[in-house]
Amino acid sequence: MKEDAWVAAIRRWTAGRRRADVIAGIGDDCAILRPAAGQELLVTTDLLVEGVHFRRGWLTARQTGWKALARGLSDIAAMGGEARHALVSLALPAWADERWTKEFYSGLGELAEKWGVTVVGGDLTRGRLFAADIVVLGSAPQGRALRRDGARTGDVIYVSGALGRAAAGGYRDAPEPRLGLGRKLRDKATACLDLSDGLVLDLHRMCAASGTSAELDGVLPSAPGATIEQALFGGEDYELLCTLPPGTEPPRGFTRIGRMVKGKPAGAVWFAGARLKIAGWDPFRSEPRTGVSPALRRQSERLR
Amino acid sequence: MKEDAWVAAIRRWTAGRRRADVIAGIGDDCAILRPAAGQELLVTTDLLVEGVHFRRGWLTARQTGWKALARGLSDIAAMGGEARHALVSLALPAWADERWTKEFYSGLGELAEKWGVTVVGGDLTRGRLFAADIVVLGSAPQGRALRRDGARTGDVIYVSGALGRAAAGGYRDAPEPRLGLGRKLRDKATACLDLSDGLVLDLHRMCAASGTSAELDGVLPSAPGATIEQALFGGEDYELLCTLPPGTEPPRGFTRIGRMVKGKPAGAVWFAGARLKIAGWDPFRSEPRTGVSPALRRQSERLR
Repeated sequence: MKEDAWVAAIRRWTAGRRRADVIAGIGDDCAILRPAAGQELLVTTDLLVEGVHFRRGWLTARQTGWKALARGLSDIAAMGGEARHALVSLALPAWADERWTKEFYSGLGELAEKWGVTVVGGDLTRGRLFAADIVVLGSAPQGRALRRDGARTGDVIYVSGALGRAAAGGYRDAPEPRLGLGRKLRDKATACLDLSDGLVLDLHRMCAASGTSAELDGVLPSAPGATIEQALFGGEDYELLCTLPPGTEPPRGFTRIGRMVKGKPAGAVWFAGARLKIAGWDPFRSEPRTGVSPALRRQSERLR
Repeated sequence: MKEDAWVAAIRRWTAGRRRADVIAGIGDDCAILRPAAGQELLVTTDLLVEGVHFRRGWLTARQTGWKALARGLSDIAAMGGEARHALVSLALPAWADERWTKEFYSGLGELAEKWGVTVVGGDLTRGRLFAADIVVLGSAPQGRALRRDGARTGDVIYVSGALGRAAAGGYRDAPEPRLGLGRKLRDKATACLDLSDGLVLDLHRMCAASGTSAELDGVLPSAPGATIEQALFGGEDYELLCTLPPGTEPPRGFTRIGRMVKGKPAGAVWFAGARLKIAGWDPFRSEPRTGVSPALRRQSERLR
């Protein structure tokens, strides 16, 4: 297919219900959108690259599309926002033929439909490797978006769902972005982010941004079958990590996992009396995820 | 470097003047932006992939960064908009080291500074090939963004600057997005787009969207040294192509190149009495641009 035929096909594949705030979608130089009154705009973009984030054959086309969008929606959830629009940039190698790409959009579209998100644009090219960059636009009431830098010493740390689920499943599942839970944290949480690279690394990032350190409880809400190292370092759970002031009741669906302590230096994570080495998934260091590296396994074995 | 060290470096490299409408930039799950009152939001995203859009060594790191952003700014110009924010997603192979990447951001930042654009986010990963996806957010007063589908039979076709400049220069130069000229077309032009893939292919797209066909004048404003085939099919000039109702004076900087005629079927482009084959640069068909393909050369030779 030529580029224009691809664009026409993608218009058909994404022609579901269209949000009323979309003035112009796919087909012009830009999408034209109407911002919601009294709302701030949230924008995030996530790259998914073959050989880094996944290997061909690990995920079906539908799962790849779902996951590509889920990562962006999870970022909106972490801000307590509503997801509205997505743009999809794809580099397609020869193996990503029309059928595969249609299935990719079908998986992406299913998740978009679920959260009322309209695909309004993107870009398209061939490439030697598959790559997708997904932009998600969302909104939050003015001044009420959640950030990662507001945690204070004494705040209690909570997590949604269970940890290590993705790692225990070999990173083959389709994550569910926690948009509903994120909105419940508005005006409540002092800090929030989504767990993409592992509890320890992401918690370290929250601590570093907030100027605190963290002390984890001895028991973590692990997913069935997950080892302790998968719960600590596994990544890709796309659960929400947040802090609430002491004495504040968390929304349903959150479990206490520790508390913020004085950070000197900021960013330390303590567990079972030991200061953990800050590690997790890093696209500059790691192979595509299949489990936990031997180094992390050795570290967590020392904790037992 | 680890991912967090890269992110910290990019924060430093992009820490220029920050727009007042940026509530939170690089470093959280999303950027938080304040939409301008009475304005619609314009969003575009452009992929630049090694081996498709350029080959390593063709452009310096600075030129690559400039060009990556220029393509998105040109889309905003084509809508008659103001550019505001950019997000930069990069896949970095081993050869794109810290020094190269800093220069990439320096070129990108120079162009951003020129147009008052703030880099507010992005994503980062390693990759076997270099890829950049650049998101640009802009705005236009409500209902006044220019679109490509409004041309009518009888409208006069104009182009800014000269055609074939990029092709004549071997696609090595840094394009200048026509943001100033685009704004002058507001409330004047019936249709507008930017010339990225060649006059004939892009004009065909405008005609197909508008339900018209186009008749080019015998003489085109070609760049010094450009052949007629480079002017017609060369691409990457990033000039603005627009239509004005007959009798409307164009803004300074635009040259008449033809007129819209009845389209049956829509999308035909006529030149020197011949209906041109619709061709231009297509990422699914073409090698990285070095000039004009032999097939296009033969076609344009028939026109002489």
